[in-house]
Amino acid sequence: MAEVRALLFDVFGTCVDWRTSVAREGEAFGRAHHVSGVDWATFADAWRARYQPQMETVRSGRRPWTNLDALHRESLEAVCRDFGMADVSAADLDDLNRAWHRLDPWPDTIEGLRRLRTKYIVAPNSNGNVALMVNMAKRAGIPWDVILGAETAQAYKPMPDAYLKNVALLGLTPPEAMMVAAHERDLAAARACGLRTGFVARPLEFGPGGRADDAPQGAWDVVAADFVDLARRLRC
Amino acid sequence: MAEVRALLFDVFGTCVDWRTSVAREGEAFGRAHHVSGVDWATFADAWRARYQPQMETVRSGRRPWTNLDALHRESLEAVCRDFGMADVSAADLDDLNRAWHRLDPWPDTIEGLRRLRTKYIVAPNSNGNVALMVNMAKRAGIPWDVILGAETAQAYKPMPDAYLKNVALLGLTPPEAMMVAAHERDLAAARACGLRTGFVARPLEFGPGGRADDAPQGAWDVVAADFVDLARRLRC
Repeated sequence: MAEVRALLFDVFGTCVDWRTSVAREGEAFGRAHHVSGVDWATFADAWRARYQPQMETVRSGRRPWTNLDALHRESLEAVCRDFGMADVSAADLDDLNRAWHRLDPWPDTIEGLRRLRTKYIVAPNSNGNVALMVNMAKRAGIPWDVILGAETAQAYKPMPDAYLKNVALLGLTPPEAMMVAAHERDLAAARACGLRTGFVARPLEFGPGGRADDAPQGAWDVVAADFVDLARRLRC
Repeated sequence: MAEVRALLFDVFGTCVDWRTSVAREGEAFGRAHHVSGVDWATFADAWRARYQPQMETVRSGRRPWTNLDALHRESLEAVCRDFGMADVSAADLDDLNRAWHRLDPWPDTIEGLRRLRTKYIVAPNSNGNVALMVNMAKRAGIPWDVILGAETAQAYKPMPDAYLKNVALLGLTPPEAMMVAAHERDLAAARACGLRTGFVARPLEFGPGGRADDAPQGAWDVVAADFVDLARRLRC
């Protein structure tokens, strides 16, 4: 653990509350477009349900590199059709698609990152694209040192390149980096690449009663209740 | 100009004083290794003189992508031989090579960037690699929103991809980005790609009496005396 120089963070669910934020953006969209009868949290869940299958079209090699904004945009058209909103203009869909650029951090995220940043390089390692991460950080005040992720590696997690290429961009070896996530699948893939691992519970990621990984099964290097607790455990 | 969303900065010479900083690092190296009779500013100039020829080996296609740390390291071996220091260990050369990670900003750089950042995305667009830029920013407190550059584009300036791929990573079009540099060759290449341009004079880049571009010939969109002046001109 003493050799860790950089902390790489999963973002959707780990740093930010995507479900509440996308539902909020959906509600504003619904009001502006006089859409009624849509449960926007259910809409957010339906949109997110297409996330892994969409990335799988790239991971499998069935199509060339396509960034997350483009994958989200395709999913959004399908979800709008499923929710009876087939007549939304392309410009309005583009704006709603950028809901993912406007996600709110969990209450402890920024304070925790500020403390962690005094000792470590802090960077996202998200499947979100660079523009999405930059716009999100700018709006929410997330103090990243550098934006890394699937787009800088040209590989979606949990492919090994998504970890190894980003660690190499920092000039580090895998044990000099720790992946921090609320998702055990992400940590297992990082550990298989030689990175250290930190688990942070986010019990409300999928809403009250949702299926979050809040009782970790793996033997991760650090397990923390939130980002401020993570900073304390890492002596920041 | 109203559509500009991001400012992309040249770094060596424009944001930081590479010559004074490398000479300082060389002096410390010389004291530690009992090297006498070396003028370290001349050493810095000799190291820098190999910068463009080294990048040209990549730009020309004569070899595959190689980042700047690796190019600097090769140059350093040659320069040490030229200065009569052929017996330096690999580990000591590695440390001296990281002098480029420890460059000091010009006195106005950080205040200017802090002000510019309130209105624009601010990012390096340097031929320096990601690790170099992250370590430099961390040490000097340079408040970048995102680290872009030759390595994220896999192309050295002034190749068009070095501008166009980085603008695309921000989800922007070329006229939504402004390249800021103390070097007219960099600005001319950016303008040919459709970016806006900002010139900042750095008359001391090459030392007193050096060959800096301090009287710009081109019709750049903005011409500023330093970064604080640039912020004022851009109404930040």
